[in-house]
Amino acid sequence: MNNWSPSSVYLALLHHPVKNKNGETIASAVTNLDLHDLSRLAKTYGVTAVYVITPLTDQQALVRKIISHWQDGWGATYNPKRREALNLIRIAENLESAIDEIRTLNPAQLVRTIATGAAENSRAMPFDLLRQKMASETGAYLLVLGTAWGLTDEVMAASDFLLSPIRGHTSYNHLSVRAAAAIILDRVLGME
Amino acid sequence: MNNWSPSSVYLALLHHPVKNKNGETIASAVTNLDLHDLSRLAKTYGVTAVYVITPLTDQQALVRKIISHWQDGWGATYNPKRREALNLIRIAENLESAIDEIRTLNPAQLVRTIATGAAENSRAMPFDLLRQKMASETGAYLLVLGTAWGLTDEVMAASDFLLSPIRGHTSYNHLSVRAAAAIILDRVLGME
Repeated sequence: MNNWSPSSVYLALLHHPVKNKNGETIASAVTNLDLHDLSRLAKTYGVTAVYVITPLTDQQALVRKIISHWQDGWGATYNPKRREALNLIRIAENLESAIDEIRTLNPAQLVRTIATGAAENSRAMPFDLLRQKMASETGAYLLVLGTAWGLTDEVMAASDFLLSPIRGHTSYNHLSVRAAAAIILDRVLGME
Repeated sequence: MNNWSPSSVYLALLHHPVKNKNGETIASAVTNLDLHDLSRLAKTYGVTAVYVITPLTDQQALVRKIISHWQDGWGATYNPKRREALNLIRIAENLESAIDEIRTLNPAQLVRTIATGAAENSRAMPFDLLRQKMASETGAYLLVLGTAWGLTDEVMAASDFLLSPIRGHTSYNHLSVRAAAAIILDRVLGME
Protein backbone atom coordinates (compact mmCIF):
# COMPACT_ATOMS: atom_id res chain seq x y z
CA MET A 1 0.00 0.00 0.00
CA ASN A 2 3.06 2.35 -0.05
CA ASN A 3 2.31 5.53 1.86
CA TRP A 4 -1.25 5.50 0.72
CA SER A 5 -3.89 6.74 3.11
CA PRO A 6 -7.64 7.29 2.79
CA SER A 7 -6.99 10.91 3.72
CA SER A 8 -6.30 11.56 0.03
CA VAL A 9 -9.93 10.59 -0.70
CA TYR A 10 -12.79 13.11 -0.76
CA LEU A 11 -16.54 12.76 -1.29
CA ALA A 12 -18.80 15.13 -3.20
CA LEU A 13 -22.59 15.03 -2.87
CA LEU A 14 -23.95 16.88 -5.88
CA HIS A 15 -27.31 18.71 -5.78
CA HIS A 16 -26.73 20.53 -9.07
CA PRO A 17 -26.44 19.63 -11.88
CA VAL A 18 -28.37 16.36 -11.37
CA LYS A 19 -31.21 14.68 -13.27
CA ASN A 20 -34.86 14.43 -12.32
CA LYS A 21 -36.91 11.35 -13.26
CA ASN A 22 -37.50 12.76 -16.76
CA GLY A 23 -33.78 13.21 -17.34
CA GLU A 24 -33.97 17.00 -17.05
CA THR A 25 -31.24 18.92 -15.24
CA ILE A 26 -32.34 20.24 -11.86
CA ALA A 27 -31.06 21.44 -8.49
CA SER A 28 -32.26 19.05 -5.78
CA ALA A 29 -33.01 19.89 -2.15
CA VAL A 30 -30.56 18.97 0.60
CA THR A 31 -31.64 15.97 2.72
CA ASN A 32 -30.75 16.20 6.41
CA LEU A 33 -29.92 12.49 6.80
CA ASP A 34 -27.57 12.58 3.78
CA LEU A 35 -25.34 14.96 5.73
CA HIS A 36 -25.30 12.72 8.80
CA ASP A 37 -24.90 9.42 6.99
CA LEU A 38 -22.19 10.57 4.57
CA SER A 39 -20.15 12.40 7.21
CA ARG A 40 -20.32 9.41 9.58
CA LEU A 41 -19.21 7.15 6.72
CA ALA A 42 -16.36 9.52 5.84
CA LYS A 43 -15.25 9.63 9.49
CA THR A 44 -15.35 5.81 9.71
CA TYR A 45 -13.31 5.23 6.56
CA GLY A 46 -10.81 8.06 7.14
CA VAL A 47 -11.98 10.26 4.24
CA THR A 48 -10.83 13.88 4.66
CA ALA A 49 -13.91 15.86 3.63
CA VAL A 50 -17.44 15.63 2.24
CA TYR A 51 -18.33 18.43 -0.18
CA VAL A 52 -22.03 19.23 -0.17
CA ILE A 53 -22.48 20.97 -3.49
CA THR A 54 -25.36 23.31 -4.21
CA PRO A 55 -25.53 26.73 -5.88
CA LEU A 56 -28.72 27.61 -3.96
CA THR A 57 -27.91 29.98 -1.10
CA ASP A 58 -30.98 28.96 0.93
CA GLN A 59 -29.83 25.33 0.72
CA GLN A 60 -26.30 26.31 1.72
CA ALA A 61 -27.82 28.12 4.71
CA LEU A 62 -29.82 24.98 5.61
CA VAL A 63 -26.61 22.90 5.58
CA ARG A 64 -24.92 25.45 7.85
CA LYS A 65 -27.90 25.41 10.21
CA ILE A 66 -27.92 21.61 10.49
CA ILE A 67 -24.18 21.48 11.12
CA SER A 68 -24.26 24.25 13.70
CA HIS A 69 -27.05 22.51 15.64
CA TRP A 70 -24.65 19.62 16.23
CA GLN A 71 -21.49 21.73 16.52
CA ASP A 72 -22.59 24.54 18.82
CA GLY A 73 -26.20 23.91 19.73
CA TRP A 74 -27.97 21.42 21.94
CA GLY A 75 -26.75 18.52 19.81
CA ALA A 76 -23.08 19.24 20.48
CA THR A 77 -23.29 18.09 24.09
CA TYR A 78 -26.05 15.55 23.50
CA ASN A 79 -24.09 13.66 20.86
CA PRO A 80 -20.47 14.77 20.29
CA LYS A 81 -19.92 11.86 17.84
CA ARG A 82 -22.21 13.63 15.37
CA ARG A 83 -20.17 16.80 15.67
CA GLU A 84 -16.94 14.92 14.96
CA ALA A 85 -18.48 13.59 11.76
CA LEU A 86 -20.19 16.81 10.60
CA ASN A 87 -16.88 18.66 11.01
CA LEU A 88 -15.88 16.93 7.75
CA ILE A 89 -18.57 18.71 5.74
CA ARG A 90 -17.60 21.55 3.39
CA ILE A 91 -20.06 23.58 1.33
CA ALA A 92 -19.25 24.35 -2.32
CA GLU A 93 -21.37 26.12 -4.91
CA ASN A 94 -20.23 23.87 -7.73
CA LEU A 95 -18.06 20.86 -8.46
CA GLU A 96 -15.26 23.00 -9.91
CA SER A 97 -14.82 25.02 -6.73
CA ALA A 98 -14.67 21.80 -4.68
CA ILE A 99 -11.95 20.49 -7.00
CA ASP A 100 -10.09 23.81 -6.72
CA GLU A 101 -10.15 23.58 -2.93
CA ILE A 102 -8.85 20.00 -3.01
CA ARG A 103 -6.03 21.15 -5.35
CA THR A 104 -5.10 23.83 -2.84
CA LEU A 105 -5.08 21.24 -0.04
CA ASN A 106 -2.89 18.89 -2.12
CA PRO A 107 -0.36 21.09 -3.91
CA ALA A 108 1.57 19.50 -6.78
CA GLN A 109 -0.76 16.51 -6.71
CA LEU A 110 -3.09 15.29 -9.40
CA VAL A 111 -6.79 15.49 -8.39
CA ARG A 112 -8.83 12.79 -10.10
CA THR A 113 -12.64 12.81 -10.16
CA ILE A 114 -14.59 9.56 -10.11
CA ALA A 115 -18.23 9.69 -11.15
CA THR A 116 -20.67 7.14 -9.72
CA GLY A 117 -24.06 5.99 -10.95
CA ALA A 118 -26.49 3.11 -11.30
CA ALA A 119 -26.35 2.73 -15.10
CA GLU A 120 -24.03 0.39 -16.98
CA ASN A 121 -21.36 2.22 -18.99
CA SER A 122 -18.60 0.88 -21.23
CA ARG A 123 -16.13 3.32 -19.61
CA ALA A 124 -16.90 2.03 -16.11
CA MET A 125 -14.00 0.94 -13.90
CA PRO A 126 -14.39 -2.08 -11.58
CA PHE A 127 -14.12 -1.42 -7.86
CA ASP A 128 -10.95 -3.48 -7.36
CA LEU A 129 -9.17 -1.55 -10.10
CA LEU A 130 -9.97 1.77 -8.42
CA ARG A 131 -8.78 0.31 -5.12
CA GLN A 132 -5.46 -0.70 -6.72
CA LYS A 133 -5.13 2.65 -8.46
CA MET A 134 -5.59 4.55 -5.20
CA ALA A 135 -3.02 2.36 -3.47
CA SER A 136 -0.40 2.65 -6.23
CA GLU A 137 -0.79 6.15 -7.71
CA THR A 138 -0.26 9.20 -5.53
CA GLY A 139 -2.74 12.03 -5.80
CA ALA A 140 -6.15 12.99 -4.48
CA TYR A 141 -9.39 11.28 -5.46
CA LEU A 142 -12.85 12.86 -5.42
CA LEU A 143 -15.76 10.39 -5.49
CA VAL A 144 -18.78 12.22 -6.94
CA LEU A 145 -22.25 11.04 -5.87
CA GLY A 146 -25.45 12.38 -7.43
CA THR A 147 -28.70 13.08 -5.57
CA ALA A 148 -32.18 12.83 -7.19
CA TRP A 149 -31.96 10.63 -10.34
CA GLY A 150 -28.18 10.88 -10.51
CA LEU A 151 -25.36 12.71 -12.26
CA THR A 152 -25.92 14.31 -15.67
CA ASP A 153 -24.20 12.97 -18.79
CA GLU A 154 -22.03 16.10 -18.81
CA VAL A 155 -20.71 15.47 -15.29
CA MET A 156 -20.10 11.81 -16.21
CA ALA A 157 -18.23 12.78 -19.38
CA ALA A 158 -16.11 15.40 -17.60
CA SER A 159 -14.98 12.96 -14.86
CA ASP A 160 -11.59 11.27 -15.05
CA PHE A 161 -13.09 7.91 -14.20
CA LEU A 162 -16.48 6.29 -13.98
CA LEU A 163 -17.04 3.67 -11.29
CA SER A 164 -18.98 0.46 -12.05
CA PRO A 165 -22.58 0.45 -10.85
CA ILE A 166 -23.38 -1.61 -7.73
CA ARG A 167 -25.06 -4.87 -8.67
CA GLY A 168 -26.89 -7.01 -6.16
CA HIS A 169 -28.47 -10.34 -7.07
CA THR A 170 -31.27 -8.71 -9.06
CA SER A 171 -31.82 -6.22 -11.86
CA TYR A 172 -33.20 -3.67 -9.38
CA ASN A 173 -30.73 -0.77 -9.25
CA HIS A 174 -32.41 1.95 -7.21
CA LEU A 175 -30.33 2.27 -4.07
CA SER A 176 -30.48 5.46 -2.03
CA VAL A 177 -27.42 7.69 -2.32
CA ARG A 178 -26.77 6.93 1.37
CA ALA A 179 -26.66 3.17 0.77
CA ALA A 180 -24.63 3.56 -2.44
CA ALA A 181 -22.09 5.77 -0.66
CA ALA A 182 -21.73 3.18 2.11
CA ILE A 183 -21.14 0.29 -0.30
CA ILE A 184 -18.75 2.30 -2.49
CA LEU A 185 -16.60 3.44 0.45
CA ASP A 186 -16.51 -0.07 1.89
CA ARG A 187 -15.55 -1.65 -1.44
CA VAL A 188 -12.89 0.95 -2.21
CA LEU A 189 -11.48 1.66 1.27
CA GLY A 190 -12.82 -1.09 3.52
CA MET A 191 -10.91 -3.84 5.20
CA GLU A 192 -12.49 -6.74 6.97
CA MET B 1 -23.05 -22.18 -3.98
CA ASN B 2 -25.36 -25.27 -4.21
CA ASN B 3 -28.96 -24.17 -4.51
CA TRP B 4 -28.37 -21.25 -2.26
CA SER B 5 -30.28 -18.06 -2.94
CA PRO B 6 -30.52 -14.73 -1.12
CA SER B 7 -34.27 -15.33 -0.89
CA SER B 8 -33.56 -17.33 2.28
CA VAL B 9 -32.23 -14.13 3.88
CA TYR B 10 -34.43 -11.72 5.87
CA LEU B 11 -33.76 -8.39 7.55
CA ALA B 12 -35.19 -7.17 10.86
CA LEU B 13 -35.06 -3.52 11.92
CA LEU B 14 -35.62 -3.50 15.65
CA HIS B 15 -37.23 -0.51 17.42
CA HIS B 16 -37.76 -2.40 20.70
CA PRO B 17 -35.91 -3.57 22.70
CA VAL B 18 -32.98 -1.27 21.81
CA LYS B 19 -30.60 0.85 23.88
CA ASN B 20 -30.56 4.61 24.30
CA LYS B 21 -27.28 6.49 24.77
CA ASN B 22 -27.31 5.67 28.50
CA GLY B 23 -27.68 1.95 27.82
CA GLU B 24 -31.30 1.87 28.98
CA THR B 25 -33.86 -0.21 27.09
CA ILE B 26 -36.26 1.88 25.03
CA ALA B 27 -38.64 1.75 22.07
CA SER B 28 -37.35 4.06 19.33
CA ALA B 29 -39.41 5.96 16.76
CA VAL B 30 -39.65 4.73 13.18
CA THR B 31 -37.58 6.78 10.69
CA ASN B 32 -39.15 7.23 7.25
CA LEU B 33 -35.88 6.93 5.33
CA ASP B 34 -34.96 3.68 7.10
CA LEU B 35 -37.98 2.05 5.45
CA HIS B 36 -37.01 3.32 2.01
CA ASP B 37 -33.30 2.62 2.27
CA LEU B 38 -33.61 -0.86 3.76
CA SER B 39 -36.35 -2.01 1.40
CA ARG B 40 -34.42 -0.73 -1.64
CA LEU B 41 -31.33 -2.56 -0.36
CA ALA B 42 -33.33 -5.74 0.20
CA LYS B 43 -34.80 -5.51 -3.31
CA THR B 44 -31.32 -4.96 -4.81
CA TYR B 45 -29.73 -7.91 -3.03
CA GLY B 46 -32.69 -10.30 -3.44
CA VAL B 47 -33.64 -10.45 0.24
CA THR B 48 -37.22 -11.71 0.75
CA ALA B 49 -38.55 -9.40 3.45
CA VAL B 50 -37.68 -6.58 5.84
CA TYR B 51 -39.37 -6.87 9.24
CA VAL B 52 -39.97 -3.51 10.85
CA ILE B 53 -40.35 -4.41 14.48
CA THR B 54 -42.16 -2.21 16.98
CA PRO B 55 -44.74 -2.98 19.67
CA LEU B 56 -46.13 0.59 19.48
CA THR B 57 -49.39 0.62 17.55
CA ASP B 58 -49.04 4.29 16.53
CA GLN B 59 -45.65 3.49 15.05
CA GLN B 60 -47.05 0.46 13.25
CA ALA B 61 -49.76 2.76 11.84
CA LEU B 62 -47.08 5.22 10.69
CA VAL B 63 -45.26 2.45 8.83
CA ARG B 64 -48.54 1.42 7.14
CA LYS B 65 -49.22 5.04 6.17
CA ILE B 66 -45.78 5.51 4.61
CA ILE B 67 -46.05 2.26 2.67
CA SER B 68 -49.56 2.97 1.44
CA HIS B 69 -48.53 6.40 0.16
CA TRP B 70 -46.14 4.66 -2.24
CA GLN B 71 -48.33 1.62 -2.88
CA ASP B 72 -51.74 3.17 -3.49
CA GLY B 73 -51.35 6.92 -3.20
CA TRP B 74 -49.76 9.59 -5.33
CA GLY B 75 -46.34 7.98 -4.96
CA ALA B 76 -47.40 4.72 -6.62
CA THR B 77 -47.62 6.29 -10.06
CA TYR B 78 -44.94 8.91 -9.44
CA ASN B 79 -42.30 6.34 -8.51
CA PRO B 80 -43.26 2.65 -8.94
CA LYS B 81 -39.70 1.58 -8.06
CA ARG B 82 -40.36 2.67 -4.47
CA ARG B 83 -43.50 0.57 -4.35
CA GLU B 84 -41.63 -2.50 -5.57
CA ALA B 85 -39.17 -2.06 -2.71
CA LEU B 86 -41.68 -1.18 0.03
CA ASN B 87 -43.68 -4.30 -0.86
CA LEU B 88 -40.94 -6.21 0.97
CA ILE B 89 -41.77 -4.58 4.31
CA ARG B 90 -43.58 -6.57 6.99
CA ILE B 91 -44.62 -5.22 10.37
CA ALA B 92 -44.07 -7.33 13.49
CA GLU B 93 -44.69 -6.46 17.12
CA ASN B 94 -41.63 -8.28 18.36
CA LEU B 95 -38.65 -10.27 17.13
CA GLU B 96 -40.23 -13.59 18.11
CA SER B 97 -43.29 -13.08 15.91
CA ALA B 98 -41.03 -12.18 12.96
CA ILE B 99 -39.08 -15.41 13.52
CA ASP B 100 -42.36 -17.37 13.77
CA GLU B 101 -43.51 -15.95 10.44
CA ILE B 102 -40.19 -16.85 8.79
CA ARG B 103 -40.53 -20.40 10.20
CA THR B 104 -43.99 -20.64 8.62
CA LEU B 105 -42.59 -19.43 5.29
CA ASN B 106 -39.74 -21.97 5.48
CA PRO B 107 -41.26 -25.16 6.86
CA ALA B 108 -38.82 -27.81 8.09
CA GLN B 109 -35.95 -25.33 7.81
CA LEU B 110 -33.74 -24.01 10.55
CA VAL B 111 -34.15 -20.24 11.09
CA ARG B 112 -30.93 -18.67 12.36
CA THR B 113 -30.75 -15.17 13.81
CA ILE B 114 -27.66 -13.00 13.34
CA ALA B 115 -27.26 -9.99 15.60
CA THR B 116 -25.30 -6.98 14.35
CA GLY B 117 -23.65 -4.14 16.23
CA ALA B 118 -20.74 -1.73 16.41
CA ALA B 119 -19.01 -3.17 19.49
CA GLU B 120 -16.24 -5.77 19.46
CA ASN B 121 -17.33 -9.13 20.88
CA SER B 122 -15.40 -12.36 21.34
CA ARG B 123 -18.35 -14.34 19.92
CA ALA B 124 -18.38 -12.25 16.70
CA MET B 125 -18.28 -14.09 13.37
CA PRO B 126 -16.29 -12.61 10.45
CA PHE B 127 -18.29 -11.62 7.36
CA ASP B 128 -16.68 -14.18 5.04
CA LEU B 129 -17.55 -16.99 7.45
CA LEU B 130 -21.22 -15.98 7.47
CA ARG B 131 -21.10 -15.78 3.68
CA GLN B 132 -19.72 -19.34 3.49
CA LYS B 133 -22.22 -20.59 6.04
CA MET B 134 -25.16 -19.19 4.08
CA ALA B 135 -23.85 -20.75 0.88
CA SER B 136 -23.23 -24.18 2.40
CA GLU B 137 -25.94 -24.70 5.05
CA THR B 138 -29.58 -24.70 4.06
CA GLY B 139 -32.02 -22.74 6.19
CA ALA B 140 -33.27 -19.20 6.62
CA TYR B 141 -31.18 -16.38 8.04
CA LEU B 142 -32.50 -13.29 9.81
CA LEU B 143 -30.07 -10.37 10.06
CA VAL B 144 -31.12 -8.24 13.05
CA LEU B 145 -30.27 -4.52 12.97
CA GLY B 146 -30.83 -2.22 15.93
CA THR B 147 -32.00 1.39 15.77
CA ALA B 148 -31.04 4.09 18.34
CA TRP B 149 -27.86 2.98 20.23
CA GLY B 150 -28.20 -0.62 19.07
CA LEU B 151 -29.39 -4.03 20.21
CA THR B 152 -29.61 -4.86 23.91
CA ASP B 153 -27.31 -7.45 25.49
CA GLU B 154 -30.31 -9.77 25.84
CA VAL B 155 -31.04 -9.70 22.10
CA MET B 156 -27.34 -10.23 21.38
CA ALA B 157 -27.17 -13.19 23.78
CA ALA B 158 -30.34 -14.80 22.38
CA SER B 159 -29.09 -14.65 18.76
CA ASP B 160 -27.61 -17.71 17.11
CA PHE B 161 -24.71 -15.69 15.74
CA LEU B 162 -23.14 -12.29 16.21
CA LEU B 163 -21.66 -10.59 13.16
CA SER B 164 -18.31 -8.76 13.40
CA PRO B 165 -18.59 -4.97 13.66
CA ILE B 166 -17.76 -2.93 10.55
CA ARG B 167 -14.31 -1.37 10.82
CA GLY B 168 -13.17 1.43 8.54
CA HIS B 169 -9.67 2.90 8.72
CA THR B 170 -10.33 4.64 12.02
CA SER B 171 -11.62 3.92 15.51
CA TYR B 172 -14.84 5.84 14.77
CA ASN B 173 -17.69 3.31 14.82
CA HIS B 174 -20.88 5.33 14.61
CA LEU B 175 -22.41 4.46 11.26
CA SER B 176 -26.11 5.01 10.67
CA VAL B 177 -28.22 1.85 10.60
CA ARG B 178 -28.86 2.61 6.91
CA ALA B 179 -25.14 2.67 6.08
CA ALA B 180 -24.43 -0.39 8.25
CA ALA B 181 -27.25 -2.35 6.56
CA ALA B 182 -25.84 -1.46 3.13
CA ILE B 183 -22.32 -2.58 3.98
CA ILE B 184 -23.49 -5.76 5.71
CA LEU B 185 -25.70 -6.85 2.80
CA ASP B 186 -22.97 -6.08 0.28
CA ARG B 187 -20.33 -8.00 2.27
CA VAL B 188 -22.59 -11.00 2.87
CA LEU B 189 -24.55 -11.15 -0.40
CA GLY B 190 -22.77 -8.84 -2.84
CA MET B 191 -20.88 -9.80 -5.93
CA GLU B 192 -18.74 -7.38 -7.90
